[in-house]
Amino acid sequence: MTVEDGDGRPRRRTVAILGATGLVGQRFVERLADHPWFELVAVGASSRSAGQTYARACSWKLDTALPDAVSAFVVRPCVPREFEGVQIVFSALDSSVAGDIESEFANAGFAVFTNASPHRMDADVPVLIPFVNPDHLEAAFAQSRASKNGRSGFIIANANCASTGLVVALRPLQQAFGIDSALVVTMQAVSGAGYPGVPAMDIVDNVVPYIPGEEDKLESEPLKILGEWRNGAFRPAEMTLSAQCNRVCVRDGHLACCSVKLRRPATADEVRDALSQYESPVAQYKLPSAPASPIVVLSADDRPQPRLDRDCGRGYTITVGRVRACTLLDVKFTLLSHNTVIGAAGGSLLNAELAVARGLA
Amino acid sequence: MTVEDGDGRPRRRTVAILGATGLVGQRFVERLADHPWFELVAVGASSRSAGQTYARACSWKLDTALPDAVSAFVVRPCVPREFEGVQIVFSALDSSVAGDIESEFANAGFAVFTNASPHRMDADVPVLIPFVNPDHLEAAFAQSRASKNGRSGFIIANANCASTGLVVALRPLQQAFGIDSALVVTMQAVSGAGYPGVPAMDIVDNVVPYIPGEEDKLESEPLKILGEWRNGAFRPAEMTLSAQCNRVCVRDGHLACCSVKLRRPATADEVRDALSQYESPVAQYKLPSAPASPIVVLSADDRPQPRLDRDCGRGYTITVGRVRACTLLDVKFTLLSHNTVIGAAGGSLLNAELAVARGLA
Amino acid sequence: MTVEDGDGRPRRRTVAILGATGLVGQRFVERLADHPWFELVAVGASSRSAGQTYARACSWKLDTALPDAVSAFVVRPCVPREFEGVQIVFSALDSSVAGDIESEFANAGFAVFTNASPHRMDADVPVLIPFVNPDHLEAAFAQSRASKNGRSGFIIANANCASTGLVVALRPLQQAFGIDSALVVTMQAVSGAGYPGVPAMDIVDNVVPYIPGEEDKLESEPLKILGEWRNGAFRPAEMTLSAQCNRVCVRDGHLACCSVKLRRPATADEVRDALSQYESPVAQYKLPSAPASPIVVLSADDRPQPRLDRDCGRGYTITVGRVRACTLLDVKFTLLSHNTVIGAAGGSLLNAELAVARGLA
Amino acid sequence: MTVEDGDGRPRRRTVAILGATGLVGQRFVERLADHPWFELVAVGASSRSAGQTYARACSWKLDTALPDAVSAFVVRPCVPREFEGVQIVFSALDSSVAGDIESEFANAGFAVFTNASPHRMDADVPVLIPFVNPDHLEAAFAQSRASKNGRSGFIIANANCASTGLVVALRPLQQAFGIDSALVVTMQAVSGAGYPGVPAMDIVDNVVPYIPGEEDKLESEPLKILGEWRNGAFRPAEMTLSAQCNRVCVRDGHLACCSVKLRRPATADEVRDALSQYESPVAQYKLPSAPASPIVVLSADDRPQPRLDRDCGRGYTITVGRVRACTLLDVKFTLLSHNTVIGAAGGSLLNAELAVARGLA
Repeated sequence: MTVEDGDGRPRRRTVAILGATGLVGQRFVERLADHPWFELVAVGASSRSAGQTYARACSWKLDTALPDAVSAFVVRPCVPREFEGVQIVFSALDSSVAGDIESEFANAGFAVFTNASPHRMDADVPVLIPFVNPDHLEAAFAQSRASKNGRSGFIIANANCASTGLVVALRPLQQAFGIDSALVVTMQAVSGAGYPGVPAMDIVDNVVPYIPGEEDKLESEPLKILGEWRNGAFRPAEMTLSAQCNRVCVRDGHLACCSVKLRRPATADEVRDALSQYESPVAQYKLPSAPASPIVVLSADDRPQPRLDRDCGRGYTITVGRVRACTLLDVKFTLLSHNTVIGAAGGSLLNAELAVARGLA
Repeated sequence: MTVEDGDGRPRRRTVAILGATGLVGQRFVERLADHPWFELVAVGASSRSAGQTYARACSWKLDTALPDAVSAFVVRPCVPREFEGVQIVFSALDSSVAGDIESEFANAGFAVFTNASPHRMDADVPVLIPFVNPDHLEAAFAQSRASKNGRSGFIIANANCASTGLVVALRPLQQAFGIDSALVVTMQAVSGAGYPGVPAMDIVDNVVPYIPGEEDKLESEPLKILGEWRNGAFRPAEMTLSAQCNRVCVRDGHLACCSVKLRRPATADEVRDALSQYESPVAQYKLPSAPASPIVVLSADDRPQPRLDRDCGRGYTITVGRVRACTLLDVKFTLLSHNTVIGAAGGSLLNAELAVARGLA
Repeated sequence: MTVEDGDGRPRRRTVAILGATGLVGQRFVERLADHPWFELVAVGASSRSAGQTYARACSWKLDTALPDAVSAFVVRPCVPREFEGVQIVFSALDSSVAGDIESEFANAGFAVFTNASPHRMDADVPVLIPFVNPDHLEAAFAQSRASKNGRSGFIIANANCASTGLVVALRPLQQAFGIDSALVVTMQAVSGAGYPGVPAMDIVDNVVPYIPGEEDKLESEPLKILGEWRNGAFRPAEMTLSAQCNRVCVRDGHLACCSVKLRRPATADEVRDALSQYESPVAQYKLPSAPASPIVVLSADDRPQPRLDRDCGRGYTITVGRVRACTLLDVKFTLLSHNTVIGAAGGSLLNAELAVARGLA
Repeated sequence: MTVEDGDGRPRRRTVAILGATGLVGQRFVERLADHPWFELVAVGASSRSAGQTYARACSWKLDTALPDAVSAFVVRPCVPREFEGVQIVFSALDSSVAGDIESEFANAGFAVFTNASPHRMDADVPVLIPFVNPDHLEAAFAQSRASKNGRSGFIIANANCASTGLVVALRPLQQAFGIDSALVVTMQAVSGAGYPGVPAMDIVDNVVPYIPGEEDKLESEPLKILGEWRNGAFRPAEMTLSAQCNRVCVRDGHLACCSVKLRRPATADEVRDALSQYESPVAQYKLPSAPASPIVVLSADDRPQPRLDRDCGRGYTITVGRVRACTLLDVKFTLLSHNTVIGAAGGSLLNAELAVARGLA
């Protein structure tokens, strides 16, 4: 495997984070602190933060300690020339600026793994979730080959935080039974809105039944992810999704109630089995961040719960519960994903690990 | 109207509350404190509380003050002979004991208006919501006539707190377009579980995706409520409901995301109009607790919200928002109801007001 | 009294609100909607909002409905010429701009009642709480007389939201026993920081043990309020205060634990009596917003609680509980005040009512 | 050291947990799962749970997974004969039953480490916190020697959860400057009340300014802990404590605002230095659960915060912040301790580790 040097020891890639001071940027910092394949060497943020130390520029909000090594990093402005010597760039940039900056980095030859939305629907950018559609990595190879300036940069996106959990749970059903349609109602954590994000006045003793743009993403991104990359183009999956998104008073962990209509009949037990027996299609690469199981099915009636289950598999495992027949569609269940780990920074990290394992980065 | 005496002034009924110390019992006390038609003269509770003053027996949890007059009431055991002289009995009893006690009171000639579930599915007990099915009151007349002992007691139930909001919102659509099926996902307040109810350890920074028995009620009660009372029997509405119930960190106010398949096509605008133009079928009785409108449709994208909208119409109005097309069924929307007012004590109170106005009590 | 016209009916003053779109501005709107002495005729806000309707410019966050009449008001920029015909101006401006704007309005002849902090420590501006120091109104008379341009404008401030509750509770003890010193630890609601204010990420499942600038205010403002206005100058009360301020996950209602060292000995019972028997020194004016009692002493061990007691007296009453001996100082107790009513908009409103009753405005 | 066998490998003690199903019991299970010195071999609980598997008897509330090995344990009734072969017993029993049961186990020769309160004020039971008063272990030696039946059982208590953090922070000040008195106001987490514990209805959007019995404990236990064991008796520290205890909407982590009057003058900087330089008096034993530092002083203005800092040192470290002069006493600061780790199960575990290291168990 390409991650070893001549002595059989892992050769670590030099990596940087763009948009490193926000909540998702902080997760990148946390998860890259002791990463066996990646060495964090630089952080970038807006011009407001550039020039300060990371410790000063960032209001650290995680309950793990800010890694000492990173706290002294001087934050750089997000322009490619400031990141010479870096091989891989993780982007936690705000959507309002991510599109252009990421293109600049990719054009300059960087491997860009982004959590931002602007490029997700680009014709040649995969929305990659290694547990679901590892073959979409081919689109990034195509980008790399097609780069005009002879440099082999590319962009790989991860999905919207709410889409991620949904597609991981739908994939086994799609493979086993086919999916006609699904109706999903989410209860999403406040960390999904970043920091400062949701005002306490809006969410204490409350639910906000609306997240701008979220339902559109949830009805479209999964079709691309669950679709095929064939003959140099994405062909979206043929299924209908209907989404209703709510913000609830939870710190981390997006919960979703799903009802699914399958293409061929299946009992709740068969669906539960398909979910619990699902194996990661990239298990052979032993990606360092991959959990033992992409999906864990919980048997207690009242699970999954955000507080108790979001950290399952260090936040990389989707937990599913309450699998039962639906009187209207075929089957319904509740699923939970950690929105800032598998649904954001962790998702990009897995993507980068897969790209390295496959020799792309 | 029977609520006036010879001088044209209202003649107030003497009323009592069974199960008066719990959260729903407290709402009854609050709402009966200055009621123009009803005079609260007695409170009953379990033998543990009987004999104490109400102020002592009850841990008052409402943010309005405990009415002085009631605080000195001595709590009585819940047996009919302790309530002589009382005409109407409101029951906020726990489901585990409500069935038998309510039957005893009805058999003893009391008009019983209950918030408890045991009698809801009885063949001759209406689950009455004046805004929805006032004609079901006929079933109570039938009970009264059929009483074996010559006494004219009867039982009228209100719906489960989560069912209430749903059927109020579905009724206009049923009348205007017919309903084939509906899928509903609820986010329910902790007060729905009574007191002490939900432990803080279970709900702070969390959602619990399960409420025992709730989904069954939500898939069955509405069919009875939206059905017909004909020839001395209830005929349930022919539609399919699928429910998923969650507990969220909200004090009061049950929110629900609904998707509905109509029998005949309608646009989201037509559905919104049907909801906003719906008029109470009992408006002519000018029931004291009835709000100006049973349903208020909110236009802001992010409404209804429990904290901001639950007290609309003093908790008697259902608020609806986000009415829009559903990619899968026909239309989807979000609705909110105050679970301890219209969904519990207030619902019973409205029922009693209608019964008085109609000459039944 | 000047609030009546020739027919003995109240003559209503025309009033306006500056900074009307924020949380405190909204409280002003709510409380002025049906005010017997004041008629709200205009609202002002920053240039970003000016020109829009109030309904559009404001994100209404109160659980009462936005008054219809006000929703159509066009927001004006905060310059005096835009408010011709207005007699009284309430300021809910942000501290960063309030100082200059309020001076301009006072110089232009307006009676300015402000919730902002910049002028509180001015040598001739009273920090007025009618229940505590109504005689400080004299300072405003002095301002009015001293106005250089012949116009009789003036500024009257209300206290910081956390100071307000404290001084109302300390006043009876100061009068009865004298106060040597007091140590206070606050647990303050998120609404105290305005909107958007405190991010949910910072306060869900958390306490923040710091509120910038708050402890300084709490150690100094009460000395001015509890001091004397004599010979044209304020003489601060001679006592020592020590404050520690915390932000907790509560929407409205500032709770404070106080320990007080008195100048002459008193038992906890005597202190409790002094608090519960305290009468408003302005009771004779029958101010429309004044509650029955400025202070209510609760006897239950576990009161006051923000959720249950903040609305006591419609938010104008301070509730006190747990009065008991302190092993270190003399007596300790817990007090609660509604931070956006008596501690903010309501406080200004009371001040304006007193000024009208006293013939100053 | 006695914890190794002949081969230099640690010899693990067999241990059991009484009251294993509650929140503190669960912490014991979590922390004993992979303990290098202790092997968990049995769990006990009330007769209601006895006979069931632990997985079934316990409603697991931690966000770490229930260890597989323990889930299959059959819960035993809490009588000594059921625990033969066990050397050390950890008690998380409810205070209502702990006193008698713990005495039975000690009399039967077990080393009992208890989190319960009944024996804390016994004349020969140390309230031990290894970071503070390791020499109080002598009292347990004395118990062991004095055991009437020749068996060497004894009881060692840890402190009340709120007392623990306080005494850890006071100890360095006592040693460096002497303490005259301290005033402490706590904001305590809901987990301190166990499960189900605090009802959500009582704490969402609220603070409860009262915890039964807590203030008495906080004013007395620290005097014993900070006092001396001399000539076979405890001599309490001579200082005055005044406590006010509040319950806040936080899951884990007790925060306290303290003001301290020292015996000899010190600046805030000197106090900060005394706190940050404090070294564990048992560092030489390298107890497996002991953190790098018993106290960490945070420099940011707004720390410590429960959510961000409670897990410092895996919950064994006390964090302190905001050290500054007090206008009334000498110095004030805010401290945080994890109430179910160092303040409960973790505290007992440290005590047992010290007892083993010292050859007592």
